[in-house]
Amino acid sequence: MYNIAIVGASGYTGGELLRMLLNHPEVEITDITSRQYDGVEAHKIHPHIRDSGLVFKDKKPSELDADVVFTATPHGASMKIVPDLLETGAKVIDLSGDYRYRDTAVYEKWYGIEHTSDAEAVYGLPEIYREEIKKADLVANPGCFPTGAILSSYPLVKNDLVDRIIIDSKTGVSGAGVSPSQTTHYPNIADNVNPYKISNHRHMSEIQQELKGFEGVKVSFTPHLVPVIRGIQTTSHSFLNKENENITTEELRKIYKKEYGGEYFIKLMDEGEIPHLSSVRGSNFAHIGGFEIDETGRVIMLSTIDNLVKGASGQAIHNMNIMLGLKESMGLEFYGLHP
Amino acid sequence: MYNIAIVGASGYTGGELLRMLLNHPEVEITDITSRQYDGVEAHKIHPHIRDSGLVFKDKKPSELDADVVFTATPHGASMKIVPDLLETGAKVIDLSGDYRYRDTAVYEKWYGIEHTSDAEAVYGLPEIYREEIKKADLVANPGCFPTGAILSSYPLVKNDLVDRIIIDSKTGVSGAGVSPSQTTHYPNIADNVNPYKISNHRHMSEIQQELKGFEGVKVSFTPHLVPVIRGIQTTSHSFLNKENENITTEELRKIYKKEYGGEYFIKLMDEGEIPHLSSVRGSNFAHIGGFEIDETGRVIMLSTIDNLVKGASGQAIHNMNIMLGLKESMGLEFYGLHP
Amino acid sequence: MYNIAIVGASGYTGGELLRMLLNHPEVEITDITSRQYDGVEAHKIHPHIRDSGLVFKDKKPSELDADVVFTATPHGASMKIVPDLLETGAKVIDLSGDYRYRDTAVYEKWYGIEHTSDAEAVYGLPEIYREEIKKADLVANPGCFPTGAILSSYPLVKNDLVDRIIIDSKTGVSGAGVSPSQTTHYPNIADNVNPYKISNHRHMSEIQQELKGFEGVKVSFTPHLVPVIRGIQTTSHSFLNKENENITTEELRKIYKKEYGGEYFIKLMDEGEIPHLSSVRGSNFAHIGGFEIDETGRVIMLSTIDNLVKGASGQAIHNMNIMLGLKESMGLEFYGLHP
Amino acid sequence: MYNIAIVGASGYTGGELLRMLLNHPEVEITDITSRQYDGVEAHKIHPHIRDSGLVFKDKKPSELDADVVFTATPHGASMKIVPDLLETGAKVIDLSGDYRYRDTAVYEKWYGIEHTSDAEAVYGLPEIYREEIKKADLVANPGCFPTGAILSSYPLVKNDLVDRIIIDSKTGVSGAGVSPSQTTHYPNIADNVNPYKISNHRHMSEIQQELKGFEGVKVSFTPHLVPVIRGIQTTSHSFLNKENENITTEELRKIYKKEYGGEYFIKLMDEGEIPHLSSVRGSNFAHIGGFEIDETGRVIMLSTIDNLVKGASGQAIHNMNIMLGLKESMGLEFYGLHP
Repeated sequence: MYNIAIVGASGYTGGELLRMLLNHPEVEITDITSRQYDGVEAHKIHPHIRDSGLVFKDKKPSELDADVVFTATPHGASMKIVPDLLETGAKVIDLSGDYRYRDTAVYEKWYGIEHTSDAEAVYGLPEIYREEIKKADLVANPGCFPTGAILSSYPLVKNDLVDRIIIDSKTGVSGAGVSPSQTTHYPNIADNVNPYKISNHRHMSEIQQELKGFEGVKVSFTPHLVPVIRGIQTTSHSFLNKENENITTEELRKIYKKEYGGEYFIKLMDEGEIPHLSSVRGSNFAHIGGFEIDETGRVIMLSTIDNLVKGASGQAIHNMNIMLGLKESMGLEFYGLHP
Repeated sequence: MYNIAIVGASGYTGGELLRMLLNHPEVEITDITSRQYDGVEAHKIHPHIRDSGLVFKDKKPSELDADVVFTATPHGASMKIVPDLLETGAKVIDLSGDYRYRDTAVYEKWYGIEHTSDAEAVYGLPEIYREEIKKADLVANPGCFPTGAILSSYPLVKNDLVDRIIIDSKTGVSGAGVSPSQTTHYPNIADNVNPYKISNHRHMSEIQQELKGFEGVKVSFTPHLVPVIRGIQTTSHSFLNKENENITTEELRKIYKKEYGGEYFIKLMDEGEIPHLSSVRGSNFAHIGGFEIDETGRVIMLSTIDNLVKGASGQAIHNMNIMLGLKESMGLEFYGLHP
Repeated sequence: MYNIAIVGASGYTGGELLRMLLNHPEVEITDITSRQYDGVEAHKIHPHIRDSGLVFKDKKPSELDADVVFTATPHGASMKIVPDLLETGAKVIDLSGDYRYRDTAVYEKWYGIEHTSDAEAVYGLPEIYREEIKKADLVANPGCFPTGAILSSYPLVKNDLVDRIIIDSKTGVSGAGVSPSQTTHYPNIADNVNPYKISNHRHMSEIQQELKGFEGVKVSFTPHLVPVIRGIQTTSHSFLNKENENITTEELRKIYKKEYGGEYFIKLMDEGEIPHLSSVRGSNFAHIGGFEIDETGRVIMLSTIDNLVKGASGQAIHNMNIMLGLKESMGLEFYGLHP
Repeated sequence: MYNIAIVGASGYTGGELLRMLLNHPEVEITDITSRQYDGVEAHKIHPHIRDSGLVFKDKKPSELDADVVFTATPHGASMKIVPDLLETGAKVIDLSGDYRYRDTAVYEKWYGIEHTSDAEAVYGLPEIYREEIKKADLVANPGCFPTGAILSSYPLVKNDLVDRIIIDSKTGVSGAGVSPSQTTHYPNIADNVNPYKISNHRHMSEIQQELKGFEGVKVSFTPHLVPVIRGIQTTSHSFLNKENENITTEELRKIYKKEYGGEYFIKLMDEGEIPHLSSVRGSNFAHIGGFEIDETGRVIMLSTIDNLVKGASGQAIHNMNIMLGLKESMGLEFYGLHP
């Protein structure tokens, strides 16, 4: 049994870590921290988790004694505590944006925060960086939009098939977090579709980093809030480069199958099947489909994930399993909630 | 390992049985039947269940070789196959209404179907009939509304505190099943509340049977369809009889705690807590709260369940665990999906 | 043309007053006030109202020069400005709870605010108090829950048919107002049903006042938040008194027809028809149905209104039309938005 | 007063025509036809429209005596009755796809139906074809997706600024019509996002016709069903051609303002404003915004319409007003339903 601590456990990603880790056979949660809810029982904030016996504590990094620490802390806050956590000997999985960039200048440009930590991190997308994650002490868990976007288009980029990608994403509202605002006010969301930061969402830079956006591929991104609690549906519109303009949909399928065929958490849709949010709701699976090319040479790829699971806490546990040498799917084998 | 068959596996309760049983450590699903989808892979109908290897088959009861058979068949159809299934030596858990009534005349009145089977069944509400379920070969799994209604009010009736109960229930649309109709047409449900069968829903008779409705307590029931996928929220308005008109809310809590304190799947809310559908979404838990008495002597009790889990397939698996002598919570320990 | 001012125009009821009054043929909006948005164009807050030319101003009551003033101000705030408004010679329609009670002690008990104004008001439910409204200078516009509840049950009480009424109401989230909170946070509302203040919501006292709750009829009330933007669906469970226990559903219909037959905004459902929220969405109509009596002597009545229109701003305009001697339906004749 | 008939009045577009025309000051509805509901009162199908006195009749075109006939009939059915209707001397507005194409071969390719009518029609997008509509006897009312798509991008194409446009649209479920199916089954839609016909939806051809898709501009289209009753949110991703790669967002705004500045039903968003579905819900307005250019030279334009109003019945009435020489906005001046 491994001891686990969660720093900043009162938000949605904290709740999801609890939901899944409480049933994980090889870990024990020893600490959940919260400044705001110091002394409050976990189920007062996470009403689905009753009788866990867990209580939020306002603890410092140095007071934690865990094998693995998840930091579900805001951007900018993580880099202030992660170095201390690493010094305790713990492995750390950070769910903020702080360690996701190979070039901290990109981080500083998009997050508007000075980057002050030189801890080395691996980008925690297991399907791409599995070998690096195995050896890492610090994993930067990917953003929710980037997870869905990268998975849908990575094989196209890896194989140099396209020169332009437009990611049009539709996200559930839980991605905005647990704090209420006009953005998450029910009457503003229900029966509505709200595009936002249509040309300059910070996740665009994270997607660009992983899809060769800094090496010649033009990568654009526009997110939309839709009346959904959980889930990100990604539609990726890409344009074949001249060398590959005659590629067939069958060849596309083969390329994806080769890339993802062995991946437990990635399911490729058959012909005629569409990835739905409900198919992955509450689960760590990503469904990928599309594989169509229209008459203008546009490739359409689709993906669905649960933003709080594969897009956050589930992927973090997947990373933990890899870092600890456990079976990758341990504690994450449950299916989506359809309907 | 026990062999399991599901008859009529293409509906929502079939999908839920699959979702949960595929991760149950002590069972193996050997057959899933469907007349309509003979030869079709399970995930074509249940898109969240991929790579299970299961295929629908159009099999007769006598062709099944299972330790436990779940019959997720329509009312009237179950009683035609259950006797044959029992003859194969299987234990049977029937999810239809066919075997829920102690008095078949009540069934015939409310379902308008002649009752032609004399197989003996136990009403499968474990919190009330656990001992009988242990010895049963045939369990009649309770209806979804009755599960939420009975659990919310049973301690009041058992202790003869009230003489009238009005059950006002709000149900998610998955309760109407997998087949589309005007009733389930999105534009008719979204942003709407639709009461139906306001004085004569057949589940009223099932609730009456278990809440002494045939022994002097006046039990009424009105259901409402709300824009929710899963879940039944029950508000029970009861009236204290003269002998108990001075009972306090503290005494009420004690009575419920005594009745349900040891039950794994029942969670009693603390003061100030409200049961939410999200707290039990996708899980087999029932949350019970309320415990208030207003100035007119009305007792207000509340409960929430997932209609497809505690209200159907999860409770069926709970019954299976009891019938097989397994740990009751086996395969059902996952939490609700909040948010 | 009459000059109209709206005090506190930045909330939902303000937006609805604007939506309807801007197309009313006999009025002109001369002032919309807001402390918070002084100088802001109306459409920045109410995005559906563009090019109206209206701008919020932070004006005092004495600075307004209007024939009619709507006060869409919080409870407690209205009574501080209404006397000054009346002194300007304007007729006033107050949308807060401040003037709704015949006995200010009831107000003080339920609102926890000292009542300091002795302006005389008429309770603005036109179907009951039309004649008084015609002569009033100050109308207290009814609460949203009370409007739906009273209309559904008033004929039962007026004709002394019942001795107990339980009002079980389901409301859309716009009733909680324009300010975000955990209560209105999308992930907490969507796919959920949230009962609240189950035994002691302040609207219970307003309903009691109008349904003889202070004269012997036991009147109870429990509200529920449902995932709906607009609308209140009311289910009224009543119990026939001994003198009327043999009344028939046909007689019930006649009684309602006699009471409401001439009312423009009340539509009585035929047999087999259910009032839906969508039938009245965005409109000032109230749909009333039910007319069933179950085997325990329970009468079930149903009503639907749009909480922001018939439950607030539309009813306020209806009151204005009556006070000004205009055609009652003027500016309010549009139908509900179905689907 | 003009006499109006609606052929095929039992669907959503029929209901919307009724909702709006019943309050139109210059028309009287003389006939509403339906084969299926012959003899049924209108409000049994359109519950929001009560006491209209209208009854569905199964009438032939030649039996109608109207100044204007709206044909809300299926694709393929319209062209069989429109010539007969024109012979009665009526002006006809057809809401199907039958007369939308300048080249019937395109229609036949995408609709798979032989085109057998040679009646001449004008494409009824008033903002582009106003002068032609004034003189037309037959107007082909545009499709819902095309209305939102064309309006969002037409100024870009008219001014030859872009060489490629990707239309990514999100539509409410009422666009699928009044008949229930798996596609519209509540549990499949709620909390979900469903892309469909991702590379080959027939509306792509209609969009291409109007956005120079057959004259060199590459126009692609992918629709998504979102959990919304009404509304289409369009995100248009376009790529500036070489001649215009340095255009500024200010210049973009000017171009749109020049094109649409005088249009009653088009509202251009200010900087920082996003078009919402709620802003136009139930109304005939189109909100257009975006006006951003990202670092890859992608232009992002956004539009929102109500698919049943500006995308169907409201635009049809707008066309009627133009054809009859009435004030264009007559009967259509009501605002959207926000929230």
